[in-house]
Formats: sequence, structure tokens, C-alpha cells
Amino acid sequence: MAETPQPKMNEAQLMDFMREVFQQVADDFNVEEVKANEVTMRLKIAERHLRPGGTVSGPSMFALADVAAYIVTLAMIGPKALAVTTNCSLDFMRKPKAGVDLIATAKLLKLGRQLSVSHVLVYSEGMAEPVAQATMTYAIPPVSG
Amino acid sequence: MAETPQPKMNEAQLMDFMREVFQQVADDFNVEEVKANEVTMRLKIAERHLRPGGTVSGPSMFALADVAAYIVTLAMIGPKALAVTTNCSLDFMRKPKAGVDLIATAKLLKLGRQLSVSHVLVYSEGMAEPVAQATMTYAIPPVSG
Amino acid sequence: MAETPQPKMNEAQLMDFMREVFQQVADDFNVEEVKANEVTMRLKIAERHLRPGGTVSGPSMFALADVAAYIVTLAMIGPKALAVTTNCSLDFMRKPKAGVDLIATAKLLKLGRQLSVSHVLVYSEGMAEPVAQATMTYAIPPVSG
Amino acid sequence: MAETPQPKMNEAQLMDFMREVFQQVADDFNVEEVKANEVTMRLKIAERHLRPGGTVSGPSMFALADVAAYIVTLAMIGPKALAVTTNCSLDFMRKPKAGVDLIATAKLLKLGRQLSVSHVLVYSEGMAEPVAQATMTYAIPPVSG
Repeated sequence: MAETPQPKMNEAQLMDFMREVFQQVADDFNVEEVKANEVTMRLKIAERHLRPGGTVSGPSMFALADVAAYIVTLAMIGPKALAVTTNCSLDFMRKPKAGVDLIATAKLLKLGRQLSVSHVLVYSEGMAEPVAQATMTYAIPPVSG
Repeated sequence: MAETPQPKMNEAQLMDFMREVFQQVADDFNVEEVKANEVTMRLKIAERHLRPGGTVSGPSMFALADVAAYIVTLAMIGPKALAVTTNCSLDFMRKPKAGVDLIATAKLLKLGRQLSVSHVLVYSEGMAEPVAQATMTYAIPPVSG
Repeated sequence: MAETPQPKMNEAQLMDFMREVFQQVADDFNVEEVKANEVTMRLKIAERHLRPGGTVSGPSMFALADVAAYIVTLAMIGPKALAVTTNCSLDFMRKPKAGVDLIATAKLLKLGRQLSVSHVLVYSEGMAEPVAQATMTYAIPPVSG
Repeated sequence: MAETPQPKMNEAQLMDFMREVFQQVADDFNVEEVKANEVTMRLKIAERHLRPGGTVSGPSMFALADVAAYIVTLAMIGPKALAVTTNCSLDFMRKPKAGVDLIATAKLLKLGRQLSVSHVLVYSEGMAEPVAQATMTYAIPPVSG
């Protein structure tokens, strides 16, 4: 069997890259841990992520899943590519707990030349059962000259 | 064949309801038109919806599709229910045009007792081809007492 | 605005092509009508497509949606490409009617160099409301030589 | 934290139930292993599951994912309910290996009163990387009486 490829970027390098390309939102997130084909990301909950009652909004959960899938792809291919989301499927399964951050774990299931495919589980920090699952596909642009 | 049911809420009533329950974000949206099983919604693009280069962010497109599916469900069942998104699938097909609003058209394909299912097409205003499509499922809570 | 491109294959050419490449299942299907970016397909229901009670099985509905998205892609790019399904999302909304064929209408929403994206509605013949909706993504292999 | 609930049906009971309700297709499948919130299923590949070149067809992969999600739901709620698929999202990631069975592992992520949500990974037997992933939602009918 082929050896598992190792990440080409670590936590700090991924944060730096994210601050460069997603300046507006990078500070909302933290790369908690990078492993082979897997990353853990945190969404630092602020007022703007909430719905009435204090629960995290759907768009904020989508944003976290999207960023986690992006970061796990980037970790494995390195900082040169500009991948874009092409498809996403989301199941909202439980109401997020009020007043705590969201934690997402993204697993890279396929890294092809054109597409990466991930599975993401989103948790309210400290809860055992996920609040959402997502499957994400990113298109990886062809390498130019 | 059964007659097509008519909407129970018009544009102004839906905007009022949205301002009540989604105070934080209601002003981002406008209900443009309500027909039987169909609504058209506008996302009024502001700085916070953008990515570098001026294109609308993924979470903003998700938010618009989600709200459009919610509003088309609400239009047909009336203001009493508190529906929640359970599933969403999104295809991001084209880069939104910089500097223009997004327009979404949501069609209600099924309105059952427990679930509503919609198909949403999202356009950059003035463009003929959609930037995204979404399928959305909402769970409709059982009527109490 | 750009002119709408016209199909490169008609109903008979698409049936011939399908018989060549999907010999085992081609006779289950019929290409009913081809228009610009749209095809209508029939699944001729036989015993093997049914579940107890006479309703059409989930895999048969998936197969029809998949073939319809394939055929609408092929109609627009011509017979040379060997596209493969990469992603599919399906909503099963109503029980198909017993004893009648299924009819699917596939609309091509995007035809890029690498991906095609479609939306498919599946009906029991003679019913006004769809039994299922599907979104399908096909990967189009790079042109060689 | 709540204790993990244990399955209410074992491998043999699930096979018996499947033979009763899905007589036409039950012999294609085998329940390999049942654990808390997880089942492993086998699709015994026969000629009718194949495409030219010997690869397993898309509808056969869908059928396996669908049955695996059904069985993991049934294992946890017991034989009384008649759950139906409402939503499915599938990523086809690799070509299945010719001449070997498919193995699916389904994890139950949510078991609510109305809906069950699962994540399924599908493998060609003996391969380390999945050929497909699926997310499946089943509607669980209200208990009558």
C-alpha cells in the first residue's frame, strides 16, 4: 500500500496563508491541529455569528465547514493553488449550544488532480454529538506553465 | 387535479415577519415577488458579503438560498410555524459579478406535513446564467395543541 | 448576450450512442426530446425496477436522473467525451405511482471545461408534481491529443 | 453524558427482516457486522451490477449506501418502523475495482423522532481508500396508536 502523504503546511503556515487571502474573515477562525488528511478548525463565536436565542446561524456553520475543507486541501497540496468550492451538502442535525465555539474536523477523502473531496463534522465545543455534517468538493485549478 | 394553493402572506407581510424573527439580517434581504409556490428574493450586497476581488462570499450565497427557501415555505403555510433547515445541497457554478446584488428564485416542490423541499437558483443581477443552485429541505414542526 | 448553443446530437443519435456504451441498460430508457440545454428521458418500468407494492425503487430513480444528466451533457458536447458522475444530490419527495413509467427532465445549468451541472425533475407519467429532484455533476475528461 | 444506546437487532435479525420487506434484492446484500450506531454491509457483486469494463454501476453503489443507512437506522430503532429515504448526497471518488464485492460502513449521526441521518463510506473490498461517500436522511413515520 502507498504511504500516507504528509501535510505540506503546518498550523502556523496555514493561518498565515489564510490571513493573506481571506483577510476579512481569517480572524474568526483558528487552525487547531493538522494531521495527514485531517484538520481541526475552530470558529470563534462572536455576536455576528448568532441568531436570536444565541444559537449559531446556518451561514456561520456553512462558513466553518467550507474553511475546514479548504484548509485540509491546502495543507496537503501546499500554498500555491487557489481552490474554489464547487459543491457542498449540509445536514443540520442539532441546535448548536449557546455561548460556545464551534469545532470542525475535516477529513480529506480524495485528492485528485482536479477535485478534492472532504467530509466535515461540526461540533459545539464540549458536546459529544455533531451539530452538522458536510461534504465539500473543491476544484483545483490546473497548474499553469 | 387539485387547484394550486395560493400564498397566505404577501411581500410586505413576509418582510415584517422576517424583521421580527431575523432582526440581525432582515435588512440584508428584500422579498421582491411572491407567487404560488415561488418567491424571488434580493440580497443587497454590502462590504461584509464580499471576498477579495469584490466577489460575493460562499456563506452569503448560502444565506440567500436558505432565506429564499424559508420564505417560500412561510408564504405557503403562513406565519405560525418555526421551520428549520435540515438539509442543503449547493452547486457553485460561476463567480458572481462584482458590485451587483444577488437575486434568488425559490420554487417550492413539496410541502408536506413534516418537510418542505425547494429548488433555488441564484443569479447576479442582470446576468442570464445562474451563479449557484441549491436544494433545501426544511423541517416543519408538528402543530401543538 | 451570447446565443444559446444548439444540441450537437438529436434523439436518435443519443439512443444509438447509449446502446453502444451502456448496452446492458440502454433498452430501459428512451430519449423523448432534446432541446437546447434540456432533455426529457423515459424509464420504461419493468418488474426489476419495482419494490413491493409496485412502487419504483430508489436505485431506479437514481439511475434515471443519472442517465438524464449524462444525456443532456452529451447532447451539448457531442459523442466524443466520456463523462463520469462525480456528485449527486437527491430529494425523494413523493411515492411514484404504481404501473406507470417515470419521466425525467434534465436542464443543463453549467457546461464548463471540466464540469457539467444539471438539475433533474422526475415525474410519474401523468402526474403534475415531481416524485424526486436531483442535482448532478459530471466530470468531463480533458481532451487528449 | 448519556450512555450510547445499544442495537435492538443483530446481524441475523436484520437479514431476516430485509428478506421479508425487500425480497427482490435482499440476497444481493449481507449484513457483515452491527455495532452501536454503525453497520458494515456487503454488496455481492453479480453481472447485473456491472458496467462495461467490469466496474460497478452508479445505481448499485447508490443501492448499497441506501440499504446500509436503512439497516443502521433499523438496528437502532427495531423492526417496527417503515422508514423511507428522503435525501441522499453522493460523491463518486474512485472507480471501483473490477471483480470484487463492495463494502459499506454506515454511521448513524442522528436518530431523531422524525429523521435519521447517516454517513456512509463505500469501499472495493481490499482497498484502503473509499470509492464513494454518501449522506443519507431517512424519514421515520410517526408511531400510530
